[in-house]
Amino acid sequence: MKAVGVVVEYNPFHNGHLYHIQKAKELTDADIVVAVMSGPFLQRGEPALVSKWCRAEMALENGIDLIVELPYSFATQHAAVFAKGAVDILQGLGCDYLCFGSESGDINEFSHTFLQLQEKQDEENLLVKELLKNGMSYPKAKSLAMQELTSLENDAGLNLSMPNNILGYEYYKAVHTNHYPIEVCTVARMKADYHDKIFTSDTIASATSIRRALLKEEGSLKTVESFLPPASFYLLQKYKEAYLSYHTWENYWSYLKFRLLQSTAKELSTIYEMEEGIEYRFLKYVKEASSFHDYIRFLKTKRYTWTRLQRICVHILTNTKKEEMAAQSQPAYIRLLGTTANGRYYLKEKKKQFALPIISKLSSFDKEKIALDIRASQIYSLGVPAAVQERLLTMDYLQPPIMK
Amino acid sequence: MKAVGVVVEYNPFHNGHLYHIQKAKELTDADIVVAVMSGPFLQRGEPALVSKWCRAEMALENGIDLIVELPYSFATQHAAVFAKGAVDILQGLGCDYLCFGSESGDINEFSHTFLQLQEKQDEENLLVKELLKNGMSYPKAKSLAMQELTSLENDAGLNLSMPNNILGYEYYKAVHTNHYPIEVCTVARMKADYHDKIFTSDTIASATSIRRALLKEEGSLKTVESFLPPASFYLLQKYKEAYLSYHTWENYWSYLKFRLLQSTAKELSTIYEMEEGIEYRFLKYVKEASSFHDYIRFLKTKRYTWTRLQRICVHILTNTKKEEMAAQSQPAYIRLLGTTANGRYYLKEKKKQFALPIISKLSSFDKEKIALDIRASQIYSLGVPAAVQERLLTMDYLQPPIMK
Repeated sequence: MKAVGVVVEYNPFHNGHLYHIQKAKELTDADIVVAVMSGPFLQRGEPALVSKWCRAEMALENGIDLIVELPYSFATQHAAVFAKGAVDILQGLGCDYLCFGSESGDINEFSHTFLQLQEKQDEENLLVKELLKNGMSYPKAKSLAMQELTSLENDAGLNLSMPNNILGYEYYKAVHTNHYPIEVCTVARMKADYHDKIFTSDTIASATSIRRALLKEEGSLKTVESFLPPASFYLLQKYKEAYLSYHTWENYWSYLKFRLLQSTAKELSTIYEMEEGIEYRFLKYVKEASSFHDYIRFLKTKRYTWTRLQRICVHILTNTKKEEMAAQSQPAYIRLLGTTANGRYYLKEKKKQFALPIISKLSSFDKEKIALDIRASQIYSLGVPAAVQERLLTMDYLQPPIMK
Repeated sequence: MKAVGVVVEYNPFHNGHLYHIQKAKELTDADIVVAVMSGPFLQRGEPALVSKWCRAEMALENGIDLIVELPYSFATQHAAVFAKGAVDILQGLGCDYLCFGSESGDINEFSHTFLQLQEKQDEENLLVKELLKNGMSYPKAKSLAMQELTSLENDAGLNLSMPNNILGYEYYKAVHTNHYPIEVCTVARMKADYHDKIFTSDTIASATSIRRALLKEEGSLKTVESFLPPASFYLLQKYKEAYLSYHTWENYWSYLKFRLLQSTAKELSTIYEMEEGIEYRFLKYVKEASSFHDYIRFLKTKRYTWTRLQRICVHILTNTKKEEMAAQSQPAYIRLLGTTANGRYYLKEKKKQFALPIISKLSSFDKEKIALDIRASQIYSLGVPAAVQERLLTMDYLQPPIMK
């Protein structure tokens, strides 16, 4: 059996994702599609709209055969670490292919850029360092350095100012730097642009614009129905009925504010990604801000991107320390969220070859190792009203992998 | 000018407190009454119903001439430390008398007990240690040991099973152990007993029963009007209008739960009063409890009193560490909350003799030293709805001492 892996957030699962899964199967002729999906908190430093279990169910209803959780220690990181963790897990699951979405859908752009930059690693690092010194943000410095070093031959090639291309490049790089026996391929994203704020076609819209429409005051699920597969629509509807709310940063603002008010600068400086004395800025503005959005607006500087600031806030919320993250540089387990019959068949056939332990039931696994993921999910559960928190709060212990 | 000092919480100020002030003046013939009052969190490990500023105003309207804050590091402690901090501050303010409420109103009971126990300090400590070893709570062990060692001569004397008598004894002891030139006297409490749950007369009720009536579901300020001086009634009414809610532990439950969910046992063990591995018990029950009351019920053991558990919860809420408390064994400043014209006259006359700095304006004082009090007040402000928090949150900086 051949497997193609995809790296996803499904926040929420929409028609563009469905298209990607279908194309990935077509392109590789794989028997099953394996997804590694971020847990409760996402790469942009935001809580997912709905729980990982609900998003896993959407995936299994729409073509994914086997879905596992990308641990918190990779899911909430910048592109290179995020990609490395995800690729390690797909490799751990024995995937033959990795298929990602890109702007052009041409894998040669990525392999070409990789070969060019491989020989210029030192130059790249130096250039990034220099740009950072001038007060530039890390993602911008990184993307500029890469563009600079490939510009001679790459004029009509890979556009490294697009977040999707950056992520794709990091997948490609992780596979090839580690010499994993995975064939990397890419599918062109359909129409709607990652940065689009409004819908651009009748059935395809970016997850960002779907969330925006869903969460605005007069917004409702009905207004985005055409962009979602029926199962997604149904599951999002059911989630709101059960938990009364989707999860947004504003739901956690009071907790973040409380935690900041009770912290000293010294204590805050132990939080992951809290560098260069920015903890003083975090403490300075907390009393003035009247919402999370307001707060990030106060914090924003040229050097710190909105995403980075949000990620630091996620780490404050989950109380994730520098030393804790330093201890988790490699995935040490694979948390199974769900399977179809095909997925189970694949697991049965391949499981013995896996290098990492597969966790189906939390109670039979070393709690220390997975503590951060559990903590993140428990904190995540506080994003719905108190009266309906309990089920979400204990779900990591009680929910067996979903079987389709 | 002669001053009589009182140690108070005024939660809220009621007719019994008014009676005590009048009697204290009568008994000592003092020119002014000085109060040292707990700030936002109280000795029983609870948030005060209303802010310290509102309670200070009640006091100034009802006979207190000068009111200062008992710092958090004494206000939230067991009787001996609480009393020592309060007495140090009254001494710091040059008080000639200290007058407290007791069951009998007979100061000889206290002096007699003090003389007896003074010679038996080692015996007392040993006995307390032994009783603790048998699983008894500290307050019970202490009161039993004291009763045991004074029983021969004290049969008809001081009843040390009454919390008010214990506190009174500790005031007496603090004054005499430190050889402060303060004359200690006592007034018999009127009718309503500290432990009473229902009203016992038409105008006098304990603060406990007033809070109970005020906070129960059908309760309202009207139902307790007869037990409050008019100014108290008016100020409580205004507070509710401005801040929409009184402060109860349940208003802070979500924050406490969040903080516990994001903490490891190791981190929790740094919190003040978290001893003997009880942090594991705190973590164990947090997911099951549906309210603060529920939570303390789960935590309760024979060894840990309800009060002690609540105090630990206050320290978790304010993030008060063992090392922080260890550094504050003596009052280092006196925070002025308000004065009458008489009080100001007294300050003017005596200020130069004071051993401790008087803080009228926060901005002109070393922030590090008073950090814990400010933090406690800021956390306290989260007990009212978000929309009206801001004023309370910044009040410690913006509110000058109240002038009557």
